[in-house]
Amino acid sequence: MAVKKIGQQTIQFQNPPKAISAYSIVGPKEGQGPLNIWFDEVLEDDMCQEKSFEKAEGRMLRNTIISAMKKCKKTPKDIDYMLGGDLLNQLMSTSYTARDLSIPFFGLYGACSTMTESISLASVLIDGGFADHVIAATSSHFSTAERQFRFPLEHGNQRPPTAQWTVTGSGALILSSEGSGPMVTHITTGKVVDYGISDVNNMGAAMAPAAADTIATHLSDTGRMPDFYDMILTGDLGEVGKKIVLDMLMGKGFSIEKVYNDCGLMIFDNSKQDTHSGGSGCGCSAAVFCGYIYKQLQSKKVKNILLVSTGALLSTISTQQGESIPGIAHAAVFSTA
Amino acid sequence: MAVKKIGQQTIQFQNPPKAISAYSIVGPKEGQGPLNIWFDEVLEDDMCQEKSFEKAEGRMLRNTIISAMKKCKKTPKDIDYMLGGDLLNQLMSTSYTARDLSIPFFGLYGACSTMTESISLASVLIDGGFADHVIAATSSHFSTAERQFRFPLEHGNQRPPTAQWTVTGSGALILSSEGSGPMVTHITTGKVVDYGISDVNNMGAAMAPAAADTIATHLSDTGRMPDFYDMILTGDLGEVGKKIVLDMLMGKGFSIEKVYNDCGLMIFDNSKQDTHSGGSGCGCSAAVFCGYIYKQLQSKKVKNILLVSTGALLSTISTQQGESIPGIAHAAVFSTA
Repeated sequence: MAVKKIGQQTIQFQNPPKAISAYSIVGPKEGQGPLNIWFDEVLEDDMCQEKSFEKAEGRMLRNTIISAMKKCKKTPKDIDYMLGGDLLNQLMSTSYTARDLSIPFFGLYGACSTMTESISLASVLIDGGFADHVIAATSSHFSTAERQFRFPLEHGNQRPPTAQWTVTGSGALILSSEGSGPMVTHITTGKVVDYGISDVNNMGAAMAPAAADTIATHLSDTGRMPDFYDMILTGDLGEVGKKIVLDMLMGKGFSIEKVYNDCGLMIFDNSKQDTHSGGSGCGCSAAVFCGYIYKQLQSKKVKNILLVSTGALLSTISTQQGESIPGIAHAAVFSTA
Repeated sequence: MAVKKIGQQTIQFQNPPKAISAYSIVGPKEGQGPLNIWFDEVLEDDMCQEKSFEKAEGRMLRNTIISAMKKCKKTPKDIDYMLGGDLLNQLMSTSYTARDLSIPFFGLYGACSTMTESISLASVLIDGGFADHVIAATSSHFSTAERQFRFPLEHGNQRPPTAQWTVTGSGALILSSEGSGPMVTHITTGKVVDYGISDVNNMGAAMAPAAADTIATHLSDTGRMPDFYDMILTGDLGEVGKKIVLDMLMGKGFSIEKVYNDCGLMIFDNSKQDTHSGGSGCGCSAAVFCGYIYKQLQSKKVKNILLVSTGALLSTISTQQGESIPGIAHAAVFSTA
């Protein structure tokens, strides 16, 4: 029997993995946002001395992982597995990074939910006694996402108020069976939820029902009230999605307003940075968590965090063929008990 | 300490998951091949009554999973997790299938290695006590892959002799903590290996070094000789890749020729079906394993199988930007001891 499962979709770890190291790199625009001082590195040039946006994203991700290893004095040989992915077709940034690092690699795709998907399976590998050190890492890049999912940058298209701004950023977390650091105590794995939203400029609304579903399931499974957490953080719902999540959870009997925020709203100052509904992308929750939240946990300014990265599982082809946008959200609990 | 790890990259399960059900669906061309009688279902029309190739692939995958559940009298509510992916950008077939089934979902991308990647992480979830029933499933479709990675079908382009034919097919395996069926006893997780091949019409050569690396590592980690296995099966290296693997392993001191075959060569009769170097695609090793091999294990005609699905982690963008093709191979051992 699955002894570590509680409720419907939640795992409670018996030997909670420790996050012994975290590192974040963000682009210039993200570096001008409110979390500026918390990121480990802010790029002066988001081309990273590469010739294409895609190679720049790959280099940013690789540097993030290498720096995360350095911070805890590990080399690729010490790492049992690397888990991660990005938004590019066939995970281009992550695949080439895994090649350069030569660490056994599980490629994951959960759109912008990939950070907590990676943390979830990395934690399973450690808690289950299969690994001692596992890297969970993701990245996104405004310029790669924009031209893959929307329009060439040169097109200069207008963006509606519901649109979000893909974060140029990456985060890497090293989870370990030993050492010290915030612990991953639970994960709640999401189902794909689709309420029929088909507007690709309104991803927040498309992902919000999945986030609400995962958060409600997590609270039911664990029997916890929202105020158990210092913060409940969704990945990149933006202003539109945030309101929907609050409403939907209220409808399910959970008032999370006092502790709730969204990484996509935290990373930019929308009044000055013109990012419309807020930030998005795999790199959004990864950089906000590995940059800002991780340090708050380390200094014990916060003790219990529910991180819920949120993904929209559309493709340009599914949109062209008239499909709506399926959402998914995976939750991971970090505690400093 | 990682008590279940042996050697460099191998996990030995202490409570090996049982493959209690398997189902395979293939397209008409695959149904005319030598494994004809072993597939659970052969499509008369590979459009599956849908209006697009992509939706047809999604329907094939969904039907495969539903039939695999029916075979062992399970419903989606009995399944803890679904793991899988496909070749389409953003895993279109699998994402929409996961939406329709409403099972907690981890999306994976390992190109054509996705079947053993899914089996690996599914086994970890069960052996570690995190789940009782997990689905591992993948699909590929000739017409979706061809137009995404190569040319519009209407273009009728010529194919060089090293080119492979993407299999229209899908396979779903249900792994369980209880019940009976072939057991997954070990997994060996691959690193990304890249020998600099950049010819997208020679994927076999691009993937072969990764396959040789994973097979050699598996044999070293376990201390087993190749003839421990009734069959060592790579996913889709085709004729070109098969020869390279044999050569490379000979160079590493392993002679696997007597027990070695490639699913891409088994699924088509190249002398009659004009598939050039052989079959490829996520669905290739998935359908050959779930259709043919699983039944050989059930009837104990074979007892120990090393399945090594092989993936080429390229994208059209990486190719356009002059990158070579990184390969990866993940191995899973099935035993009927």
